[in-house]
Amino acid sequence: MSYLDQIASPTLLIDEKITRANLKRMADKAARHKKKLVPHWKTAQSHEVGRWAREYGILEVTASSIKLAEYLCGQGWENVHIAFPFNVREISRLNKLAAAQSLSVQIVNPTTAQKLASQLTERVGFFIEIDAGYGRTGVHISDHETIGKILEEARKSDKLYFKGFYIHPGHTYYTADKSGIYEQSRQALHALKVNYQSEYPNLLTRVGDTPGCAVMEDFGDVDELGPGNFVFFDLMQAELGSCTKADIAVCLAVPVVDISIARKEILIHGGGVHLAKDVLTDASGAKNFGEVVVLTESGWIIPADRSFLKSISQEHGVIKASDSLMASVQIGDLLGILPVHSCMTADCMGEYLSLDGKKIDHCEGTH
Amino acid sequence: MSYLDQIASPTLLIDEKITRANLKRMADKAARHKKKLVPHWKTAQSHEVGRWAREYGILEVTASSIKLAEYLCGQGWENVHIAFPFNVREISRLNKLAAAQSLSVQIVNPTTAQKLASQLTERVGFFIEIDAGYGRTGVHISDHETIGKILEEARKSDKLYFKGFYIHPGHTYYTADKSGIYEQSRQALHALKVNYQSEYPNLLTRVGDTPGCAVMEDFGDVDELGPGNFVFFDLMQAELGSCTKADIAVCLAVPVVDISIARKEILIHGGGVHLAKDVLTDASGAKNFGEVVVLTESGWIIPADRSFLKSISQEHGVIKASDSLMASVQIGDLLGILPVHSCMTADCMGEYLSLDGKKIDHCEGTH
Repeated sequence: MSYLDQIASPTLLIDEKITRANLKRMADKAARHKKKLVPHWKTAQSHEVGRWAREYGILEVTASSIKLAEYLCGQGWENVHIAFPFNVREISRLNKLAAAQSLSVQIVNPTTAQKLASQLTERVGFFIEIDAGYGRTGVHISDHETIGKILEEARKSDKLYFKGFYIHPGHTYYTADKSGIYEQSRQALHALKVNYQSEYPNLLTRVGDTPGCAVMEDFGDVDELGPGNFVFFDLMQAELGSCTKADIAVCLAVPVVDISIARKEILIHGGGVHLAKDVLTDASGAKNFGEVVVLTESGWIIPADRSFLKSISQEHGVIKASDSLMASVQIGDLLGILPVHSCMTADCMGEYLSLDGKKIDHCEGTH
Repeated sequence: MSYLDQIASPTLLIDEKITRANLKRMADKAARHKKKLVPHWKTAQSHEVGRWAREYGILEVTASSIKLAEYLCGQGWENVHIAFPFNVREISRLNKLAAAQSLSVQIVNPTTAQKLASQLTERVGFFIEIDAGYGRTGVHISDHETIGKILEEARKSDKLYFKGFYIHPGHTYYTADKSGIYEQSRQALHALKVNYQSEYPNLLTRVGDTPGCAVMEDFGDVDELGPGNFVFFDLMQAELGSCTKADIAVCLAVPVVDISIARKEILIHGGGVHLAKDVLTDASGAKNFGEVVVLTESGWIIPADRSFLKSISQEHGVIKASDSLMASVQIGDLLGILPVHSCMTADCMGEYLSLDGKKIDHCEGTH
């Protein structure tokens, strides 16, 4: 029986071959540059995909929340890093988890360092997050006073130990000059290493975002790479040049519920609760919430002429269809949709179906 | 112990008093106009909120998917209507559910009617969805040929019975002239009633969207009102004029993880996976992903000077803070965020916390 026969309702498909190729390509690249690859697991959020990753020598991962870190606990990860400015209301939850799993957290201010130093009952590492110009979060690269105070607070505790500096250059997503931003991040981390290495000889520097890690070839003395989205990629990454559409490893299978011949539009069951609402907007202002692929017994094929989701609401999606799709589509068919933002789509769907018809786990819920 | 002491991580709060006031106001309005109120339960998706609704004489609800209809089954609803163009791949799932719960579905083409007529094993009602100009879904108001074919297919079955016509004038969300659109919907339903009433004397007409139902005072001969969002309201509805911000019944409690005094910004744990990514954009292009309220022991207060979420990513939110908020906020505090789109936020969060510290259920998952 084909996996397609199992599908009645919107279902997120995962292509294991493509996922493994993405994992291997980045692992090989990290090895070539003698860097440690510590992927951000907010994209896959899966035990099973973690088992595939460990086959390529990936031994540590990053989580976006304590909830995800709890999910990943006990799966054989040598360390789970929670890459979010630590929330002091979660210290008791952290203590409980740290008793069972090697963990590190991220600190961006002395208040948080002080509370962790005084309340931790288990050993937990930390990175100081550095703002390399993105302006979302992190200590400014030149703010040595704040860095000094964080380190001073941490030294008061034998539980809280400094691991190094972390930069997420998220603005590579919005900037044409990715190598400029990367150069800036690399130099920032280099300067910090020079500054603090005498006191902390084992300190590590980590940089991580998919557009940068996918295209750059000079990582300087950075120790660790932490991209996330590369595990699945998506249309946003294809547009940024991090991948081709053939590298996208997940696709939402959706049932066709109506067809408008006059408008050349196809109504699907598949909307914001399935895909999330991330969107690409072209120069003319036209919106693209996902692109149609043709599902086959063994996976999916990207058609030569493009059909795309022109609008979505909570449950509905409207496809602007090519002539060839219009000629073949029938009510009750399944189509595939490549997502604009695979992390958000996987988070909405909460599980995957493999192309051999097996359910693949994903961390459930947001709490 | 205050409900606030229970909160370490992002948590969706529900104010029962405001929710009940919203339910009562719409139930009273429907009663005043001698219409039946059949709310769209895609907003609340909750058994407990359903118990509150039934206290105001609300006896039927609408679901957005068969998954939600399954969740609502057996809760005492006289009928659950699935207001989505029926997906023929779900007929066996529908048969199973219809054995336990009175159901109706929505049909927009003869193919679907034919498949239901030939494969239903239980009695299921149906509405024909009419497109009153929104262009998303439904049979065009003047397309009597399609309407006739759907009815003809249905007559071949003793399981599939016609209930009436349904219009969702979703374009009221985007149009200043709501009364013009409403007038158009009302006239469309009236014309259909005149046309088909001799053959189907019990046929019903239903119209439903929150902006329309909240502001209109003349519903003509429409039989049923089907708004959804009014149960909670949100910032989008406040901007449309359907409610005031004081009517918004849910709010996301979020922990403060960092404060930038220089930028007057507050970093919270609260992003796209919690709020969804719906956004309001003002005339200057500035984005608003949610507005800050002050949490108290008994609920929340809308401050006189506005602070709002200027940007969000998967887990992060950045608040542009007023001077008074900046003066009082501390790392580790909880703030409240009124959502832009409450249906999507509730769907992301998957449960509520009441102001007396009880968990309130919400249908889990998307499948």
